Amino acid sequence: MFEKKEIAKKSVNPDRWYTDVILKSELADYSPVRGCMIIRPYGYEIWENIQNYLDKKFKELGVKNAYFPTFIPMSFLQREKEHVEGFSPQLAVVTHGGGEKLSEPLAVRPTSETIMYDTYARWIQSWRDLPLLLNLWNNVVRWEKRTYLFLRTAEFLWQEGHTAHATFDDADTFARKILEIYTVFDEDVLATPVLVGKKSENEKFPGAAITYSLEALMPDGKAIQMGTSHHLGDNFAKAFKIKYLDKNGREQFVWQTSWAETTRVIGAIIMAHGDDQGLILPPNIAPIQAVFVPIKLNEKVLNYCQKISQELVKSGIRVHIDSREEKSVGWKFHEWELKGIPIRIEIGEKEMENDELTLVRRDTGEKVKSQKSKVKSDTERLLKEIQDNLFERMKKFRDENTHTVSSYEEFKKIMATQKGYIYAFWCEDPVCEAKIKEETKATTRILPLDAKEEKGECVYCKKPATHRWYFAQAY
Amino acid sequence: MFEKKEIAKKSVNPDRWYTDVILKSELADYSPVRGCMIIRPYGYEIWENIQNYLDKKFKELGVKNAYFPTFIPMSFLQREKEHVEGFSPQLAVVTHGGGEKLSEPLAVRPTSETIMYDTYARWIQSWRDLPLLLNLWNNVVRWEKRTYLFLRTAEFLWQEGHTAHATFDDADTFARKILEIYTVFDEDVLATPVLVGKKSENEKFPGAAITYSLEALMPDGKAIQMGTSHHLGDNFAKAFKIKYLDKNGREQFVWQTSWAETTRVIGAIIMAHGDDQGLILPPNIAPIQAVFVPIKLNEKVLNYCQKISQELVKSGIRVHIDSREEKSVGWKFHEWELKGIPIRIEIGEKEMENDELTLVRRDTGEKVKSQKSKVKSDTERLLKEIQDNLFERMKKFRDENTHTVSSYEEFKKIMATQKGYIYAFWCEDPVCEAKIKEETKATTRILPLDAKEEKGECVYCKKPATHRWYFAQAY
Repeated sequence: MFEKKEIAKKSVNPDRWYTDVILKSELADYSPVRGCMIIRPYGYEIWENIQNYLDKKFKELGVKNAYFPTFIPMSFLQREKEHVEGFSPQLAVVTHGGGEKLSEPLAVRPTSETIMYDTYARWIQSWRDLPLLLNLWNNVVRWEKRTYLFLRTAEFLWQEGHTAHATFDDADTFARKILEIYTVFDEDVLATPVLVGKKSENEKFPGAAITYSLEALMPDGKAIQMGTSHHLGDNFAKAFKIKYLDKNGREQFVWQTSWAETTRVIGAIIMAHGDDQGLILPPNIAPIQAVFVPIKLNEKVLNYCQKISQELVKSGIRVHIDSREEKSVGWKFHEWELKGIPIRIEIGEKEMENDELTLVRRDTGEKVKSQKSKVKSDTERLLKEIQDNLFERMKKFRDENTHTVSSYEEFKKIMATQKGYIYAFWCEDPVCEAKIKEETKATTRILPLDAKEEKGECVYCKKPATHRWYFAQAY
Repeated sequence: MFEKKEIAKKSVNPDRWYTDVILKSELADYSPVRGCMIIRPYGYEIWENIQNYLDKKFKELGVKNAYFPTFIPMSFLQREKEHVEGFSPQLAVVTHGGGEKLSEPLAVRPTSETIMYDTYARWIQSWRDLPLLLNLWNNVVRWEKRTYLFLRTAEFLWQEGHTAHATFDDADTFARKILEIYTVFDEDVLATPVLVGKKSENEKFPGAAITYSLEALMPDGKAIQMGTSHHLGDNFAKAFKIKYLDKNGREQFVWQTSWAETTRVIGAIIMAHGDDQGLILPPNIAPIQAVFVPIKLNEKVLNYCQKISQELVKSGIRVHIDSREEKSVGWKFHEWELKGIPIRIEIGEKEMENDELTLVRRDTGEKVKSQKSKVKSDTERLLKEIQDNLFERMKKFRDENTHTVSSYEEFKKIMATQKGYIYAFWCEDPVCEAKIKEETKATTRILPLDAKEEKGECVYCKKPATHRWYFAQAY
């Protein structure tokens, strides 16, 4: 109980570090169910902060929350051909209910398109019913063979938005509005710079017309998807017969979007920002932004901490006072570093007498002397500086690890060594994409939204190519 | 589309009225999955209001939110004998995952005691780890044979709290604190008066030592459970070996509680307060508390509505302006009555010129003339009056339908006619309880928390009895 919690060094063994830091900081734990994890209160508070932020943004767009059943009849999944092919290897299937064998097996939802759109067909009759903008906060199950805390688990939490629109363009505009919300969320809240663009035909969501994706580069040089927004075209509308009468009384199919952000992004921020001492949480998402560690524990010092903390709480800063008697100051420093609290506030007896205190930055270790009268503004300023520093650090890393490449030899060499992004011409033939994946484990990540047409040749087959794509190995 | 939505009369056919009003007011809808419902945005907003209220109260007690897997290995459920007997007839069972047969089938959680407490045994080591106070907001599945929107569905949403304490008394104090939160919530927020007490041995939660329950009487004379808080004793602690070292270094079992509030309460408020015209939502839970219906739709009137509504929003009132051009004023009145909005604000052109408006109460139909300068205070006052009136109305109904009875003949007669609560001596022998249930469909509801010992004889067997219990037919 009183020993310091040891973790592997990120710089030496990043895989073990990742698991150690999640378990020891109590973000999550393994469960007795294969591939399913327990999200502990410290991890769940991060998820609640994510929920609060995104839920507000969605509602500002007119999106409403709802709930649909966790079970999907197998026949529903089969109605959209690409969709069932994509998801059927990953299904958990309920065959018995109330002691009896079911006449039709039910899948536990891997995603809710099919169960929702059958009902959308009933709800949508006229152009006046459009757009229909719904979102669900729920749990989904995808039976993964190899699992990894937060990043790939058989069950995870997410939000899934599902909209229906009158035209292709309306749906596209909406999918891009969501993409914009996700971009600001990833960059300004999670302090994680993202590349934003379209997925290739092979990499898009099963059943989508266009998949927009946000990708972040992790310190090990592998990319991770930080959210997706799909333009579903009229694929599901046709499969589920979702039609409306337009203003001229003509029957039309609707155009749809679906979009999701998951607990997986918590894995990404752990990996992106942490160091050998443990987590470093971006202030905008941290459950505790500043922790008070009194150097001497007595009533006077605690009262002083209390007074200052109330001041900070008033301006919306999330604080905690560590008043445990049984733990040493050294143990507490170590513990709160492990938990990644952005600012540690140290207060000794002498400092108190002089109305002083010390703010210690988790990201740089820098100690900043402050005074009682300035603590609010100093804390606010430092939180912003830490948030910005984490973002800039990751952005610098990404830029340094983005390689514009024209030879396949170079492509292979980079993927075999430092990894990172490769930015290269690709002819858009799935055969080249598959070969590259087979030989380098790198997949196409995205075609940037603002990509310009150029004249080039495919990095693999040397045939003419019009656009450069980002490639990377990915989680 | 433009027809008034017809519903059955509550006074004539309450069962059909209940279903009609839920479907037509768009609180919920049937799903293609047997026994599972869709909660539509209007119903989900009520659930969000419930969540916001309760979540804040739980956190004030130091409870933290977490997430545990949706799947429970069958062997876990079997570890507590009464628990598995209670739940096994209702399980949905996953037998296949990722295309393969599972070595051990997994139940979709009907409640999470067993999956959580296996982990509690790992987390809890010392008295310093207690109390452990966790809550989950999730979905659970109980395969019900006969289902009823909101009140009994194969899947429902809820919160389930699970705590561990050092002593029996600590657990009991906590279970009662939760009971107090639920009581205030049911009465002050849902405007539904409750009887609060203990369940009989037969009626308690499978695996609990004591089940505290809150019961409300519906207009048809049947009772409904409005929340439960269970003292689990050390039953699960022994089954899952949850032990801690006390301050003297001795190993002890923990004492536990679990407690839940579900989407079922939405069914109760629909049934309790509604009338022939539709829903009547208690203001404290209504997604929209006041709806503006302009009598004449033009820019000037709409601007006037906008200005007044901003004033109301500023003081935290939830408002909506119905500016649809395609609907008549009559249609709108009917629609918002159906949806149970507590106050309708009517504004005509002439009224606008005189800085006047009319507030119409949904509960009584009363029209209250108001002025621009007084609209905020008038609306606040009326919302409070409506909230109080709904509560008092139900309380009066309950008191009028509570029958203190000493003869079994009378008991049977009441249960065969007007129903309601029966308050009668019972010897606490499960045989009498079972006979009464068989012959009258009435079950013991609760022994009031403050029940005094008296001398009496059992209403059924005439043997000595020390306490009066409440009996009723129940949902």
